[in-house]
Amino acid sequence: MKIIEIQGENYKDVIDSLLKRGEDDFTEVDQVVYEIISDIKRNGDRALIEYTAKFDKARLEGIKVSENEIAEAIKVVGDEFLKILEEAKENITDYHKKQLQNSWMSNEQEGIILGQVVSPLERVGIYVPGGKAAYPSTVLMNALPAKVAGVSSIAMVTPPNKEGKVNPYILAAAYIADVDEIYKVGGAQSIAALAYGTETIKPVNKIVGPGNIYVARAKRAVFGLVDIDMIAGPSEICIIADENKNPSFIAADLLSQAEHDEMASSILITTSKDLAMKVKEEVKIQTEKAERRKIIMRAISNYGYIFIARNIDEAIDIANEIAPEHLEVMVDNPFELLPKIKNAGAIFLGEYTPEPVGDYFAGPNHTLPTSGTAKFSSPLGTYDFMKKSSFLYYSKEALRNIKDKVISFTEAEGLSAHGNSIKVRF
Amino acid sequence: MKIIEIQGENYKDVIDSLLKRGEDDFTEVDQVVYEIISDIKRNGDRALIEYTAKFDKARLEGIKVSENEIAEAIKVVGDEFLKILEEAKENITDYHKKQLQNSWMSNEQEGIILGQVVSPLERVGIYVPGGKAAYPSTVLMNALPAKVAGVSSIAMVTPPNKEGKVNPYILAAAYIADVDEIYKVGGAQSIAALAYGTETIKPVNKIVGPGNIYVARAKRAVFGLVDIDMIAGPSEICIIADENKNPSFIAADLLSQAEHDEMASSILITTSKDLAMKVKEEVKIQTEKAERRKIIMRAISNYGYIFIARNIDEAIDIANEIAPEHLEVMVDNPFELLPKIKNAGAIFLGEYTPEPVGDYFAGPNHTLPTSGTAKFSSPLGTYDFMKKSSFLYYSKEALRNIKDKVISFTEAEGLSAHGNSIKVRF
Repeated sequence: MKIIEIQGENYKDVIDSLLKRGEDDFTEVDQVVYEIISDIKRNGDRALIEYTAKFDKARLEGIKVSENEIAEAIKVVGDEFLKILEEAKENITDYHKKQLQNSWMSNEQEGIILGQVVSPLERVGIYVPGGKAAYPSTVLMNALPAKVAGVSSIAMVTPPNKEGKVNPYILAAAYIADVDEIYKVGGAQSIAALAYGTETIKPVNKIVGPGNIYVARAKRAVFGLVDIDMIAGPSEICIIADENKNPSFIAADLLSQAEHDEMASSILITTSKDLAMKVKEEVKIQTEKAERRKIIMRAISNYGYIFIARNIDEAIDIANEIAPEHLEVMVDNPFELLPKIKNAGAIFLGEYTPEPVGDYFAGPNHTLPTSGTAKFSSPLGTYDFMKKSSFLYYSKEALRNIKDKVISFTEAEGLSAHGNSIKVRF
Repeated sequence: MKIIEIQGENYKDVIDSLLKRGEDDFTEVDQVVYEIISDIKRNGDRALIEYTAKFDKARLEGIKVSENEIAEAIKVVGDEFLKILEEAKENITDYHKKQLQNSWMSNEQEGIILGQVVSPLERVGIYVPGGKAAYPSTVLMNALPAKVAGVSSIAMVTPPNKEGKVNPYILAAAYIADVDEIYKVGGAQSIAALAYGTETIKPVNKIVGPGNIYVARAKRAVFGLVDIDMIAGPSEICIIADENKNPSFIAADLLSQAEHDEMASSILITTSKDLAMKVKEEVKIQTEKAERRKIIMRAISNYGYIFIARNIDEAIDIANEIAPEHLEVMVDNPFELLPKIKNAGAIFLGEYTPEPVGDYFAGPNHTLPTSGTAKFSSPLGTYDFMKKSSFLYYSKEALRNIKDKVISFTEAEGLSAHGNSIKVRF
């Protein structure tokens, strides 16, 4: 890990290049994606089955996962893990219930009623990656907020392996999360199917979930026809620590993000030069013992930094500038710093809240804004599966009271038919 | 207006083609937009001034609107209209305050604290069109929700006329809404400046506001680096009316949307054949008298429809399918139908709540989802200028209690460094 002592704003260029590490030219990918989308629009299921043969090497009869396949998966996974899934479901559901919003209505002026209806989206699609990145937690974290919001129909898509099967942990998690339909398709073709519909898959209103670059670009391409979640960049962890914190805890947490992929970034910001040196050493030691050390080594050597700040406020300023996906705050009284943290996806307070607790189990969502987008976006939540309509009612008298003001407005804007809709009533 | 009697699903193709009326191939526009963006990134203010000379024919010394220019505009607009702006501001502010959300924190399990911080975006950019579509209401409806959210810095951009001046009504509205900075630049170049920053304009976290196709495509191009609001398609009004409603009210309201532009769509869904005929006739009569009759005639003849439904539930089903930007409900007891309305931007209840009341004055936002996107998106609101961070705290004991379950999860996902971040602590 590179150690940088903060002087003036010498950290800004480093942060800038970190934030840009996911940027690229996607022209060629987009070309492929557009072709796939237009093929699915024209040929529906048939094209889905052909792409699955081509990309996933699986020859499918039908794309829908059967009750039998789910029952089989549940057996493979076993009761013990099912119980853990259930408990995670309970925590995630509890947390996301607190994000529910109510419709409201008010009547502050005579004859005028104003309000807002909050209602769930009708149908949502969830993408779950296959292969090595097939994570049951992805299913829970995307499906459960939609369930809590009251979405009545959830369709999940995920690519099968060569044998035409889906990872049993994925299926078990979908079962626990009460996903309504599961389809064995992946890639840009599955995104097109969710957006436009095929004979088997009914179109959805919103598509969420992580995926490779083809999935991400396909989501961007169908955005507008349907809604999508934020497109995730590579993962990040940032740890703020003052002196006397445990370097081996810190190193372990830095590594837990680094193992995700070679583009992941792990950053420590500390007020203690001594801690900086110890963490650097500890990262080396733990990396050597790590199963995924090749990935970790690449990530850490390219995107691993230790900043030494002159005081804790400067440390927080830097973290706010990074706007990290995950921010651990290891200081003596972390709650005291909470109000100063402006930009972060999820904040882990204290020495015994390592980031992975939030990935699976604690309740908050693990789908978080990356690449500095925490400056303007939020964790995936119940609110992402609900929408609002405003409503208003004026009595004849109430309209009469304000009519001249509204007409003045329409005149200032040169829209006389707007004015006439008032005039015609009196 | 074309009258269609509903039989089976014979309305679906019509709705489908209406929803697609804003779709087009934007390849050429995008090429121009990308060039402008990269020019602004390289050359900053200098490029802004050059594009303003080229596109707006205005030779500017500086791009920032001065205090003097604002003072002059306020004089031109006059006290009476300023007072109307103030009153509109008050109504809009009151409504949007009801959308504020609080941070929360909970402690339901021993040693575990979970919560969510809700905080405003730091800096927001607002685009306001120039020329004939320069509307003071646009300024209020975009700036005031950001103000209510607590955004500390709001920058407005708007193209100047040939003399290098900005419409005085726009400036007066910006003054009333406490916009912090105003710049005389428009088009894709102004969006690039807000996203990337120049010597004079500091970059923002989010860009909102309507604009022409260059502005819309530029917003889409910078989406990800900054957040944007939903990109608006052509305007729509849909009116549900049962028998014995006033055909001249209905016709006037249909025309009030049609005058916006030739792509606007005006739809009546009624259970009364008699009313359908009367409205058709009344639309003809009122169109002939309208100032903007050329625009209205085009819009109505291409995108004006009257659907005759067999009962009120069918009428509502059709409206839900259309998911209109504006929905007027002219029935005897409109509140009774409100829970059945699933998809609409804003809902106007009763015979004395014509849509233009909501455009300016009542309080709800006039920036609404168009082209069927009300199925998954919401009116612009205070929530669009706030973001959330989740936070969590575990005590050592609390972590110990769940550690084995989290480790099982990390093993199921093959992420051992995730597991190690727990193990290292015990």
